[in-house]
Amino acid sequence: MTGKKVNEIQIGERAIFSKTISESDVYLYAGITGDFNPAHVNKVYAENTFFQSRIAHGLLAAGLISTVIGTKLPGPGTIYIEQDLSFTAPVYIGDTISAHVRVLEVSVPENRVALETICKNQNGKVVIEGKALVAPPKK
Amino acid sequence: MTGKKVNEIQIGERAIFSKTISESDVYLYAGITGDFNPAHVNKVYAENTFFQSRIAHGLLAAGLISTVIGTKLPGPGTIYIEQDLSFTAPVYIGDTISAHVRVLEVSVPENRVALETICKNQNGKVVIEGKALVAPPKK
Amino acid sequence: MTGKKVNEIQIGERAIFSKTISESDVYLYAGITGDFNPAHVNKVYAENTFFQSRIAHGLLAAGLISTVIGTKLPGPGTIYIEQDLSFTAPVYIGDTISAHVRVLEVSVPENRVALETICKNQNGKVVIEGKALVAPPKK
Amino acid sequence: MTGKKVNEIQIGERAIFSKTISESDVYLYAGITGDFNPAHVNKVYAENTFFQSRIAHGLLAAGLISTVIGTKLPGPGTIYIEQDLSFTAPVYIGDTISAHVRVLEVSVPENRVALETICKNQNGKVVIEGKALVAPPKK
Repeated sequence: MTGKKVNEIQIGERAIFSKTISESDVYLYAGITGDFNPAHVNKVYAENTFFQSRIAHGLLAAGLISTVIGTKLPGPGTIYIEQDLSFTAPVYIGDTISAHVRVLEVSVPENRVALETICKNQNGKVVIEGKALVAPPKK
Repeated sequence: MTGKKVNEIQIGERAIFSKTISESDVYLYAGITGDFNPAHVNKVYAENTFFQSRIAHGLLAAGLISTVIGTKLPGPGTIYIEQDLSFTAPVYIGDTISAHVRVLEVSVPENRVALETICKNQNGKVVIEGKALVAPPKK
Repeated sequence: MTGKKVNEIQIGERAIFSKTISESDVYLYAGITGDFNPAHVNKVYAENTFFQSRIAHGLLAAGLISTVIGTKLPGPGTIYIEQDLSFTAPVYIGDTISAHVRVLEVSVPENRVALETICKNQNGKVVIEGKALVAPPKK
Repeated sequence: MTGKKVNEIQIGERAIFSKTISESDVYLYAGITGDFNPAHVNKVYAENTFFQSRIAHGLLAAGLISTVIGTKLPGPGTIYIEQDLSFTAPVYIGDTISAHVRVLEVSVPENRVALETICKNQNGKVVIEGKALVAPPKK
């Protein structure tokens, strides 16, 4: 149950996690965070916005990045230090989102790994771009 | 049901949202995102880590920032463009987290607002530091 | 799967449903309704209020009355017409609440039944008092 | 984080909260309260009833009233004393419900506020009518 140590991680290494974002995902996420922005939970309001339909919370979709980091690359024991996110396109209820993580830099002496973190929808469109900095598990 | 337009927002303006993070919050969030990192959902594992107890997902706590942005400042109709996050201390199950948002810069011609976004626990310790860039609602 | 018809219901007849209200009940209910009043979801805030601890939403506890009406007395097929509620004492997270329903009046020609609806906690203290008016199933 | 005091509240003042009621809302509410009346959670049964489709629990929709009272008018610190409800039309899964609260009476010496509480669906049809009595926060 321990992820990869810093000296086991290669630049260019990749991992992915993918899930269809359901209405109940968006509703439960609103319920956890208190974010009842009508763009997420009010169908009538949302149909009259630029996006024309209810969208998922940006940080909900970003959560799939953390899934890759915390369960696959580097995996359990990793400490999340930084995450930068650009929301480049909306995520609609029913979209299938894939979080792609790729190793950009590895510093063995500092025990740090920099990661490219991208989320795409079912059409390959990038919905989130960003970078993460993590400390892999030491033991 | 529409938030503040760019010309109604002042540099230095603030808003806040606060909540105790429950075990069920962490479990539902794991269920939504698939992030079953044992640090969040395995008590036995977590007691043997550096943090000594189960911690909340960093992006769950960050979600409270989105609550402030999407419901208060600027509020409904805002488009989330960027969010940078540094996770500076762990959030434990049972911690009461306050998300503080403060306006740093306002560009009326570009319809952009830069925000300082900070989360603190019940002891005033900063657990997340960061900045957001948003587009306030136009109408 | 059909409840009692009006001519099968006796004045004085009773039914009950009982449940311990968990923290996750209160959190999920906040998440469904959007009621993030800090009295329910902020431990630090709640400890500084008159009630000294987080309390359940009053209408959550009242929901147990509907459970009795919709599943037992009269049961499935009943149409809920009116519900009057007095919140007489707080319901704390962890309290075991019993909803007691008792038939007060029966009108066969109008197909109406009036019910006394009371919720008590584990100490027998009345936390909700009220009356309901319902139309039992016709077939 | 404190709502309006009794002397800050005007007769005629209004507040609103609005949300689309999802299938997951109804299912989670059933799970919290134990109200598994087939009218709410059994599609086959519901299609053969007068309403022809699964409907939300009446007290679930009424919960949006409490959201307005506990978070907006009067807001945090308010004590809920009475709520009378008439269920005037069914709420279907997928309906967008708005809870409208309006101040009817204010008693400064008794620290009491009487409120009109109405829920409407996306077509403006009144689904719940009622009145509430509350004690606004004292400090």
